[in-house]
Amino acid sequence: MPKSVIIKEVGPRDGLQNESAVVPTEDKVELIRRLSDSGLKHIEVSSFVNPKWIPALADASDVFAQIERKDGVLYSALVPNERGLERALTANVDAVNIFMSASESHNRKNINKSIEDTFPVLSPVVKSAKNQGLPVRGYVSTVFGCPYEGKVNIESVLNVSHRLLEMGIDELSLGDTIGVAVPSQVTEVIEKLTTEIPREKIALHFHATYGTAMANIWAGLNSGISIFDAAVGGLGGCPYAPGASGNVATEDVLYMLHRMGIETGVDESKILDTAAWLEKVIGRNVASNMRAVQRGAS
Amino acid sequence: MPKSVIIKEVGPRDGLQNESAVVPTEDKVELIRRLSDSGLKHIEVSSFVNPKWIPALADASDVFAQIERKDGVLYSALVPNERGLERALTANVDAVNIFMSASESHNRKNINKSIEDTFPVLSPVVKSAKNQGLPVRGYVSTVFGCPYEGKVNIESVLNVSHRLLEMGIDELSLGDTIGVAVPSQVTEVIEKLTTEIPREKIALHFHATYGTAMANIWAGLNSGISIFDAAVGGLGGCPYAPGASGNVATEDVLYMLHRMGIETGVDESKILDTAAWLEKVIGRNVASNMRAVQRGAS
Repeated sequence: MPKSVIIKEVGPRDGLQNESAVVPTEDKVELIRRLSDSGLKHIEVSSFVNPKWIPALADASDVFAQIERKDGVLYSALVPNERGLERALTANVDAVNIFMSASESHNRKNINKSIEDTFPVLSPVVKSAKNQGLPVRGYVSTVFGCPYEGKVNIESVLNVSHRLLEMGIDELSLGDTIGVAVPSQVTEVIEKLTTEIPREKIALHFHATYGTAMANIWAGLNSGISIFDAAVGGLGGCPYAPGASGNVATEDVLYMLHRMGIETGVDESKILDTAAWLEKVIGRNVASNMRAVQRGAS
Repeated sequence: MPKSVIIKEVGPRDGLQNESAVVPTEDKVELIRRLSDSGLKHIEVSSFVNPKWIPALADASDVFAQIERKDGVLYSALVPNERGLERALTANVDAVNIFMSASESHNRKNINKSIEDTFPVLSPVVKSAKNQGLPVRGYVSTVFGCPYEGKVNIESVLNVSHRLLEMGIDELSLGDTIGVAVPSQVTEVIEKLTTEIPREKIALHFHATYGTAMANIWAGLNSGISIFDAAVGGLGGCPYAPGASGNVATEDVLYMLHRMGIETGVDESKILDTAAWLEKVIGRNVASNMRAVQRGAS
């Protein structure tokens, strides 16, 4: 069981790209300022995917140009290909996050390529980013279930993970894209992966769709994982389940970790205040439990 | 890790007593019919606490008189004292549930007596119920935290548990009344209790207030616990945190258990349909994740 945990905040990217409200650039900049001020050391700021596909994050360059960068905080961005990397480098990102899926159908729908054909697209991105001295993280989507295929073969997760690591990425983030994972599955996947992959290179990324995210994090902790993705206010949703919850909420994860005596270096109350502020920005109540308690008390 | 789990449905009692909407008797009867039809074997139907204190359940006798009893299903009720037991016996309950708190202040606020003075009230209730051949369950509230005292001493939990077992109760239900528990705490409490109390006499009762209930259940399973309380639709709330979530939702618990290959004998889709039906009865969306996904899909 790790004594301390790194939270990687994905709200501004994975959260906002799935919100129906389009958030103005200046509010995104303010969101990043607030998150930077909370003690978080890793913030995924935006995405350099073609704005045609994700209009909500079309202002990625502007956001990077306008944010105030705090010492010791890594401001990363999602990058799909060399074209996106160029824009990301121009925007002076601190770290690059690439992505693909463990299931063939989701990879095709999301990236418009087979899994096999995706590697040659990502490989030069990793190489160039590493040449620029930037850390690279690889998201593997649909690790615990696929909206098109259902169950995902662990062999496919292993294959994609290995190939990404061979390219030179520094960290894998195993994503439960549709929020279907259960804790026994988390234990099983981690045990299989860590026979060949160092535990410290693995992060876990859970969505709250079916309410199992916190249990999955607890299972991950018990398997020695110490890096978890989360989004302030539980931002985002699930494109395959309209109305469902989004990412696991940063403030809820902090509650559980801190109360178990696990350090994060993040100020729970600042994240909670940011969640409250976000409600005015996105025009709806956020889905976190901490915020529901806070709303009731005020 | 248990291969099968018993879910004890507490929605009609612990759920409805904390809902702002007062549910008509006929809807309660229909709720019990639906739950009985789902495969649940234990349903807490109502409470024989003085109706002055819990007006929402003042119709306990009528509900018991009107429900159709399904073979193999135990229809239980909450009973505070001998007066309540008399009403419960007249109503022909199948099982009796008594209650008290592990923390002094909560016990005083809730029962208007010290912990020590509560034992002589409950002892004759257990004795009479057992004499009638009825199983008796003892709820221990505030096991993982108290709204007035904060942290609760494990010694107090042990003391109350032992005294209740000495009276002759068949099962303890350890309650996280305000939903503050974290999984490491569940492991710790169960490990301490089971040095002296048989594991199979322990049930766990979690509330979703801070989003940790599912993680706590996973921790309980890992400590060999196989009886869990839950409420359809996550009914109820928290009197100490207005607007917060209520009991952990039966359908969400079923989702996690079934997907992990743990049997319950309960039909997930019937519970989910009941949650959907309940929304019309209580006039608000229920808080379960399963139902949120279902709403989005329809």
